Amino acid sequence: MLTLILAESSIELVPNEIAGRSAIQKWAERKKKAPHQLILDQSYHHSAILSLGKSGVGRGRPDIVHFSLLLALGSPLNSDNQLNCFVHTRDDHVITINPRARLPRNTDRFTSLIEQLYQESVVPSSGTPLMKLSKESLKDLLSRISPDDVVALTTAGSPKPMDQVAMGLSHAKRPALLVGGFPVGHFSDQTMKLAPDRFRIDRRSLEAWTVVGRAVYDYEKAIGIGKF
Amino acid sequence: MLTLILAESSIELVPNEIAGRSAIQKWAERKKKAPHQLILDQSYHHSAILSLGKSGVGRGRPDIVHFSLLLALGSPLNSDNQLNCFVHTRDDHVITINPRARLPRNTDRFTSLIEQLYQESVVPSSGTPLMKLSKESLKDLLSRISPDDVVALTTAGSPKPMDQVAMGLSHAKRPALLVGGFPVGHFSDQTMKLAPDRFRIDRRSLEAWTVVGRAVYDYEKAIGIGKF
Repeated sequence: MLTLILAESSIELVPNEIAGRSAIQKWAERKKKAPHQLILDQSYHHSAILSLGKSGVGRGRPDIVHFSLLLALGSPLNSDNQLNCFVHTRDDHVITINPRARLPRNTDRFTSLIEQLYQESVVPSSGTPLMKLSKESLKDLLSRISPDDVVALTTAGSPKPMDQVAMGLSHAKRPALLVGGFPVGHFSDQTMKLAPDRFRIDRRSLEAWTVVGRAVYDYEKAIGIGKF
Repeated sequence: MLTLILAESSIELVPNEIAGRSAIQKWAERKKKAPHQLILDQSYHHSAILSLGKSGVGRGRPDIVHFSLLLALGSPLNSDNQLNCFVHTRDDHVITINPRARLPRNTDRFTSLIEQLYQESVVPSSGTPLMKLSKESLKDLLSRISPDDVVALTTAGSPKPMDQVAMGLSHAKRPALLVGGFPVGHFSDQTMKLAPDRFRIDRRSLEAWTVVGRAVYDYEKAIGIGKF
């Protein structure tokens, strides 16, 4: 059973400092929500995020988590009940994903679902939960699931092809793999410390969803998941 | 150089028979377009598509092409100029993708771009084209690019793991790989005839983007693309 954690993911509510900006206000009106109930989104709040200057870099990308989760949840590994997914956000929330969740295929629909999740802590509001939200640091999440091997994929790690990383993970009983749920930059020092093994799987910088797809696929091969 | 063709993809303009339905009319109003300028979209035209009965199954899924292209274009194979992508649609249009295109990350933004493409045949309207649209059958597209090996991935094919399929493709000079750009069902007989080699890469039915991600990754390994 592999635990996949999208760490420091670019998901957060619109921060107060830009809640008054016109693009945000307009978007809030259109969505019939208050500005502070909106998930920050590069696609619609581009200039507002720019106004944050350097601190805005890489923020507001719920699409990264969305697409990464679609790939992870649609994998044979997940069909065979051997994958567990968590989303850790840059503001220290943790989203626990039901492995049977069928997520919306549309980015905006997914973002709206995350907005509902930040309001109600669980979606859907009745029936089997698909996603749960808690205020939790990455450190606390790792303590809770107590993996016996934690590997982080980062361009700041030592070079190692993904299939070899996966082979290593397959020797653990409860391995956890950290993939950055953000578009640019690096894990914080805090996160780096939580993962003694850090690898770079390509000389190029790859998008999170590409990393997730490759990691899951190689892990399937490493544990010999039956293709036929 | 691998040619990836998303074939019979679920992209089309809203068909006349449902152009008058209220969900479509409303959506057209909101997008300030005529109904027949809209791309059919399950996320917003669900009930209208349902009203098509059996013929509506699997239609209106531009997200499938969107995610598949994001994965393909973001791959090391594409960075190394060894990938060429085409989208063939169920109504016999072909979208030629500039390998350097940076697509929008948001589903609706992508769909709007496709709507513009159906209007203007090329996007953006000035500068280097990112996508071009032509009325063309899959057969004509294949004649035009004249691959020396055509492989289709389909659950109706003979079982063969993707890495072995990729190994086969790597022996060709101009291989073409067909992946269905639709959610359920099979290629038409016409398409099947165009690809003498048809393989099933998993006993489960996989989503198109998963197939694309795995095919590209295995092909990189087969041709020995440098990771470091």
